[in-house]
Amino acid sequence: MNKAQKYNLKLKRLGIDTYKEAILYLKENCPVCRSEGFVAQARISVNFGDQFIVATLNIIQSDLLMDDEASLSEYAWELLGVKEGDTIGLSHPKPLVSLSYIRKKVYGNVLNNQEISTIINDVLYGRLSDIHIASFITACAGGRLNISEIRDLTKAMISSGECLHWHSKLVVDKHCVGGLPGNRTSLIIVPIVAAFGLTIPKTSSRAITSPAGTADTMEVFAPVELNIKAMRKVVEQENGCIIWGGAISLSPTDDLLIRIERALDLDSEGQLIASVLSKKIAAGSTHTVIDIPVGPTAKVRDLETANGLKKNLEIIGKELGLTVRALLSDGSQPIGRGIGPCLEAKDVLSVLQNHSKAPQDLREHSLQLAGAILEFSNTVKPGTGEPLAREILDSGKAFEKFQAICLAQGGFNEPKKARFCYTIVSGKSGVVEVIDNRRLAQIAKLAGAPHAKAAGLELQVSIGSLVEKGQPLYTIYSETKGELQYALSYKQEKKQTIYLRETE
Amino acid sequence: MNKAQKYNLKLKRLGIDTYKEAILYLKENCPVCRSEGFVAQARISVNFGDQFIVATLNIIQSDLLMDDEASLSEYAWELLGVKEGDTIGLSHPKPLVSLSYIRKKVYGNVLNNQEISTIINDVLYGRLSDIHIASFITACAGGRLNISEIRDLTKAMISSGECLHWHSKLVVDKHCVGGLPGNRTSLIIVPIVAAFGLTIPKTSSRAITSPAGTADTMEVFAPVELNIKAMRKVVEQENGCIIWGGAISLSPTDDLLIRIERALDLDSEGQLIASVLSKKIAAGSTHTVIDIPVGPTAKVRDLETANGLKKNLEIIGKELGLTVRALLSDGSQPIGRGIGPCLEAKDVLSVLQNHSKAPQDLREHSLQLAGAILEFSNTVKPGTGEPLAREILDSGKAFEKFQAICLAQGGFNEPKKARFCYTIVSGKSGVVEVIDNRRLAQIAKLAGAPHAKAAGLELQVSIGSLVEKGQPLYTIYSETKGELQYALSYKQEKKQTIYLRETE
Repeated sequence: MNKAQKYNLKLKRLGIDTYKEAILYLKENCPVCRSEGFVAQARISVNFGDQFIVATLNIIQSDLLMDDEASLSEYAWELLGVKEGDTIGLSHPKPLVSLSYIRKKVYGNVLNNQEISTIINDVLYGRLSDIHIASFITACAGGRLNISEIRDLTKAMISSGECLHWHSKLVVDKHCVGGLPGNRTSLIIVPIVAAFGLTIPKTSSRAITSPAGTADTMEVFAPVELNIKAMRKVVEQENGCIIWGGAISLSPTDDLLIRIERALDLDSEGQLIASVLSKKIAAGSTHTVIDIPVGPTAKVRDLETANGLKKNLEIIGKELGLTVRALLSDGSQPIGRGIGPCLEAKDVLSVLQNHSKAPQDLREHSLQLAGAILEFSNTVKPGTGEPLAREILDSGKAFEKFQAICLAQGGFNEPKKARFCYTIVSGKSGVVEVIDNRRLAQIAKLAGAPHAKAAGLELQVSIGSLVEKGQPLYTIYSETKGELQYALSYKQEKKQTIYLRETE
Repeated sequence: MNKAQKYNLKLKRLGIDTYKEAILYLKENCPVCRSEGFVAQARISVNFGDQFIVATLNIIQSDLLMDDEASLSEYAWELLGVKEGDTIGLSHPKPLVSLSYIRKKVYGNVLNNQEISTIINDVLYGRLSDIHIASFITACAGGRLNISEIRDLTKAMISSGECLHWHSKLVVDKHCVGGLPGNRTSLIIVPIVAAFGLTIPKTSSRAITSPAGTADTMEVFAPVELNIKAMRKVVEQENGCIIWGGAISLSPTDDLLIRIERALDLDSEGQLIASVLSKKIAAGSTHTVIDIPVGPTAKVRDLETANGLKKNLEIIGKELGLTVRALLSDGSQPIGRGIGPCLEAKDVLSVLQNHSKAPQDLREHSLQLAGAILEFSNTVKPGTGEPLAREILDSGKAFEKFQAICLAQGGFNEPKKARFCYTIVSGKSGVVEVIDNRRLAQIAKLAGAPHAKAAGLELQVSIGSLVEKGQPLYTIYSETKGELQYALSYKQEKKQTIYLRETE
């Protein structure tokens, strides 16, 4: 660090959340800006003790800051481990060697292991800005990463965080590429597999833009914010768990890359494979089933892409010591009836309790995937996994195990019912032809999901259903009248959510 | 626009300058965030009257904002044309079709004219975020734009701003690709060419990261912030002008793209060509000379690249009706002696006034370029331009014209001398072998340039100079003791700025 370029400023908290971007706020025309020639959007090295991060400068032209004060975005406070009143130093950052590696990729060259891990390390420590990361992701997209680069990227992402280790030789897992609404198979698969006796330490995510994530739905039943120690205790006792991955730090760079991929709407196969495999390997899995739904509104749209992805997932998994079995499934319509944490939890519960009216699509899809996982065991012959899974579910052992896992995670609760509801009825008779999942998800979010756990909606029809005029199509649930009103005005304006073909 | 998704919030000014990025600030958990599911870094459509921009959301967790208030970054205030207390509406932005065009380019396809102009239009109106622009720039880098795409990009950039039109059939201009320190040829070329009688309406830029831009140096002599009407008056009266381009809106998307290219440190040939040609064509030029300095620390490092660039500049210029003559020059060392606005102005003045001690490199380089421009005239035969330029300079007509242009722009001033100075002397004898331009520029900036016009430094030696122990190498100038001290401590720490080969 260059002492002459260091300036000491006192930190003031402005409370600005920029998600995962490190921003430094300085007062306009303060001595350090003037003498160093720092201008808005400059990248500046922010030093505290032995730590440093590189942040993007925003200039405060008002009296939010004084000349000798500085502030940081919430993410930067956390990254640097500082508190209000601490004194930071500023300097011009050293040129980042990772930028030259990114340029190398932009110009179409192959990166080696060391170059990729330098880039990932700089992503992790916030030294690369969002636009640098966007450039890296763009340079890798369009099939520009080869197999060895994807493998090295996966390895680098694993090394960026914690790694779990388990006593069992066989540790299984499952993942779904590009979730369908209501596709809460994990809550059914984990208890079946754990009841059989295999180790399945499952981590899941919360909703980001959807009305519910698997972790949100599990949270209806039991606490999900367990740390590694607590997670280990649950798995040792019950063979399995379903916790929120955000509470433990597995492949943390994955989230940092995904938020930029999402903003760019770029789904690069290489990044997808590295993302999935790094999370599974860091979680200590030895064998995993990966569900690839294929359909016009799913992440993977055609069979050719799906088969290519399946092959590469299996090859790269093998190189990294993870046995991968990828399964293609029908991704043409949502699975289950509920949308929103409690309503999805209700679907899960009805399957686990073997209700006659439980959604069969959710039940069958879960059994197929659970069967494939059970076949990882030496004692389960090929072709016998699914019947075995069915037996465990039908016998009630899966539900028993699910309750035991919930209790081990901190207690079992039943899904709540929302205070307010409104049922949308059909204005005419016909056969259900198309269900607009995007609009239904939006209605569920406006009704309060996932913040209000009981909010959302429940479908009373599916594609092919014969509907009479006046028959209920779906019911919207919410915890406040205002939110119900939001959802209804959106529905009123968009009008069509379920399209019927008129019968003659 | 979707009414149900609109929320009205009152604008409060927080005074946060993010340079050219549109940011929207909302209070955490305010009703609109909750019901719309807006999270930090989401892209949100901000509506005011008939206008809308798309901004990136930052969440305020403190009491800087109340639930029914919103704020914007300074750039977004300007873009939307709002003032404190105005009421804005928010909604989810429509999916941008330009994002699918960017993806098309990412996947290696060729873009057509309409696709490129849609992207450029969305850049101009702030609908694409910085990471989208970074992705676009990355996808175009590495030679991935073909000639027709570069031409279409140039056309789209021209259409994004004002275009000037002049009465003369022949309107000339000059540009330098990748400036060398002290390379202020424009201030010598414009008066020579204007004195001869050609129309040369020159726009220049201010320093961004350097100790002085051409506009900063010209401002030592005369006002440079003229609007189009005032500029036109100067040119009609004196044939030429040298004004700051930022005050008129020529190819405004160029600046928006350049700031991201600079942050990525990506110099794509396609973007460079579009940048240069769009500015010249929008300024109404029919003929332009482009100086391409070639050297290890210049923007263009080898002759092969320089010749390729020259060819493409000339081809694409021709397709768009602009005659381009690109000249390669020696870019191995700085031109002139001063670094900083007044010190560079002093060099310019000594050349214009034909002082015997004027820097010969600046004089000769200016004459060469001015000669090439004069040859655009029918009346000047090939090979006679440079002698003619020399005649105009030697006769004093160029200096006369320069003073007249300054007066027309608002008044002629002589460069000031700084209050404080300190001379660095050589610690040993030898021959100057290397001059570290980067460190000298940093010293000039620490001494106060370009804010303090008189600050900077003046070299007393050049490469090849024979130096005795104790002989002055350069003098640092500043307006305050503190700034002189900053510059000296940096110098002390970095020690070497001028490297000598010892003589025997």
